[in-house]
Amino acid sequence: MSARPKVVIVGAGFGGLQCAQALIGEPVDVLVIDDRNYHLFTPLLYQVASCLLAPSEITTPLRTLFRGAPNIRYRQGHVEAIDTNAKSLTLADDDVLAYDALVIATGSVTNYYGKSDVRAQALGLKDLGEALRLRNHVLTCLERAVIEPEGDDRRRHLTFCVVGGGPTGVEYAGALAELVRLVLPREYPDLDHRDVRIVLVEGTDRVLPAFAPRLSAYAKQALERLGVEVRCNSLVASADGRSVTLVDGTHVPTYSMIWAAGVQPADPLDGATAASSGRIAVDDHLRVVGAEDAYAIGDVAAGRDHKGATLPMLATPAMQEGRYVAREITNGPSAKPFRYRNRGTLATVGRSAAVGKIGPLQLTGFIGWVVWLTVHLYYLIGFGNRVRVLARWAYYYVRLERPVRIIARANDP
Amino acid sequence: MSARPKVVIVGAGFGGLQCAQALIGEPVDVLVIDDRNYHLFTPLLYQVASCLLAPSEITTPLRTLFRGAPNIRYRQGHVEAIDTNAKSLTLADDDVLAYDALVIATGSVTNYYGKSDVRAQALGLKDLGEALRLRNHVLTCLERAVIEPEGDDRRRHLTFCVVGGGPTGVEYAGALAELVRLVLPREYPDLDHRDVRIVLVEGTDRVLPAFAPRLSAYAKQALERLGVEVRCNSLVASADGRSVTLVDGTHVPTYSMIWAAGVQPADPLDGATAASSGRIAVDDHLRVVGAEDAYAIGDVAAGRDHKGATLPMLATPAMQEGRYVAREITNGPSAKPFRYRNRGTLATVGRSAAVGKIGPLQLTGFIGWVVWLTVHLYYLIGFGNRVRVLARWAYYYVRLERPVRIIARANDP
Repeated sequence: MSARPKVVIVGAGFGGLQCAQALIGEPVDVLVIDDRNYHLFTPLLYQVASCLLAPSEITTPLRTLFRGAPNIRYRQGHVEAIDTNAKSLTLADDDVLAYDALVIATGSVTNYYGKSDVRAQALGLKDLGEALRLRNHVLTCLERAVIEPEGDDRRRHLTFCVVGGGPTGVEYAGALAELVRLVLPREYPDLDHRDVRIVLVEGTDRVLPAFAPRLSAYAKQALERLGVEVRCNSLVASADGRSVTLVDGTHVPTYSMIWAAGVQPADPLDGATAASSGRIAVDDHLRVVGAEDAYAIGDVAAGRDHKGATLPMLATPAMQEGRYVAREITNGPSAKPFRYRNRGTLATVGRSAAVGKIGPLQLTGFIGWVVWLTVHLYYLIGFGNRVRVLARWAYYYVRLERPVRIIARANDP
Repeated sequence: MSARPKVVIVGAGFGGLQCAQALIGEPVDVLVIDDRNYHLFTPLLYQVASCLLAPSEITTPLRTLFRGAPNIRYRQGHVEAIDTNAKSLTLADDDVLAYDALVIATGSVTNYYGKSDVRAQALGLKDLGEALRLRNHVLTCLERAVIEPEGDDRRRHLTFCVVGGGPTGVEYAGALAELVRLVLPREYPDLDHRDVRIVLVEGTDRVLPAFAPRLSAYAKQALERLGVEVRCNSLVASADGRSVTLVDGTHVPTYSMIWAAGVQPADPLDGATAASSGRIAVDDHLRVVGAEDAYAIGDVAAGRDHKGATLPMLATPAMQEGRYVAREITNGPSAKPFRYRNRGTLATVGRSAAVGKIGPLQLTGFIGWVVWLTVHLYYLIGFGNRVRVLARWAYYYVRLERPVRIIARANDP
């Protein structure tokens, strides 16, 4: 038996993975539990959905990441319940595991805001399975449109309603517009690419509401140049699979409602200690309020910045929190509370245009895009992936290609 | 209305695609119909199933292949019935299409020889969906084995029974053995790779029975060096999902029966004009016997060589037949019957070992493997794919990596 403390990390997204990697070689035994056997680089997920990248280019097997790290173990599994008093957790296969320290890093899932009709009709864009389904769906719509005679039903197949004007919605709408623009004229001689309609619906008065108004205005313009209809101050009232109805009564006839309108924490504590945001309440050392030796980080946790504002659900805070918690576990509780360093935010609007805020700098256009590209390539985990993705991007950037246009699914029984 | 003859090609595998490409720019209007929107390079499918290549690396979208060819159209669809008298075909969506000339190139599907228990339990390796399912399945078995305590059930998860000692079975068994050998010791510290058992079951007295006995012996040795148990003169009697029973009474406890024991023609004429092999009977001009202006090529057709022997179900004869039929359609019926030129056959047994017969030459070992690599890269369709796949192969060859080890599926509703 090992006398080394047993650390269990639930979730291998940005936060959980950073925490595990910071614990490599430390005098603790770490078990990382995740349903998925890979780390997913979610900021580029929309490029899988829009046929530019293959799934294997934005994923790395977790076991590869922990290779050569004898104190880190991985287990595929789903955590059903956590007992913070007994310091144990129960997996979906009924196994019960004890821990000395727990890191909850389960991230977030798509939020349908309780609308069951929307949930039933929506195409999500939050995990790899959803991105693959969306890719297959869009390509199938194009193939069906070719067969349909000109008219309402053809146009319905060629209309795509993207809900949510945050980074995911804006990036996907831009990438979809480019896909259509690059591919249709060359490869769908029977379709008129002007029949394609992409509508972006945003609830507030501007897209990318977390960015400065100037950057929002630039993003809106860039989207409109790509042919995207941007509808701000607009919400989805209902959806029936053949059309989306907005609260102002507008009908958008479409078979495709892409839902990028928000996420909610995937809380394994079932809200037992949730803050008002639904995220797990943590103190300034990221300890779960009311529980001993349990930490929560990333999207699932309500971490705060030094002004007391809840941190955004993004990769950067999750990663910083993961490293902080690893230090706390290794060195014991410190005097220093967690302090978030905002290094900026970026979003891209199609090829060679992006908006960003880095410190006092506001970036737009090509320079913004180069910065976006550099940052994303830098963070793409695994040396092999980074080189390959860069090579592919360069190649397809020049060739204006969207290579991964295959309708493919595993033949599950 | 165009007065140009309308050619319909059903199936875009090796035969159908070669035929379509040979008709580019000719004075005919071609419609290619296939369920799948991509051409699949089936000879490398086992590498998708064994985590070396991604699906996008062995597929090319059909519309990309026909880009810039205004006389070739693609339609996604499944042909339900063909009326060779009326010269028309019916699609699954009930559309009826007329043709002036028809090329049936629907290929083949896995043959379970009427064994329904085998069909229900088997993992196929004939199309992309099956390969992805097999990849996910094998990776899931490894993850389950980690969780199981040492004993029967763990070993059951680590036993893989590959049925069929033809090229597909031999190549997959070799690739699976290498996957286990490369990945387990480095990434599964809780598993002993000696607990892994790969059994290859072949009905005849040697593996690769279509090759010379010397090459079969070499392949068997190479497999055994990789730790594969080769059982010749052996057939599957039954399978129940927890074990495979051979006709001699041997039980192989396993959750994994990979079925590479044979294929059967995917005949859209439902055997109406089938030869004894079940393949569509054709004359020496590859015309369907008893039908006017209808040709059949590739796996689905019983084409013959100049000695009267039915051609093997392989890519090379299909491609040659496709080009021949394209010429017959363009130039009108010729005096020359179809003549198959046997350029040789190749099969690989793991990394850096292959067997092959090219004219009078019998190749084995590393030289065989280099020839195998060259030929396959040459035929991998699409310049982009070829360069990328070569680059990846070189990289992973040196690094002994199997990068695409992700358990991923599209979230279908």
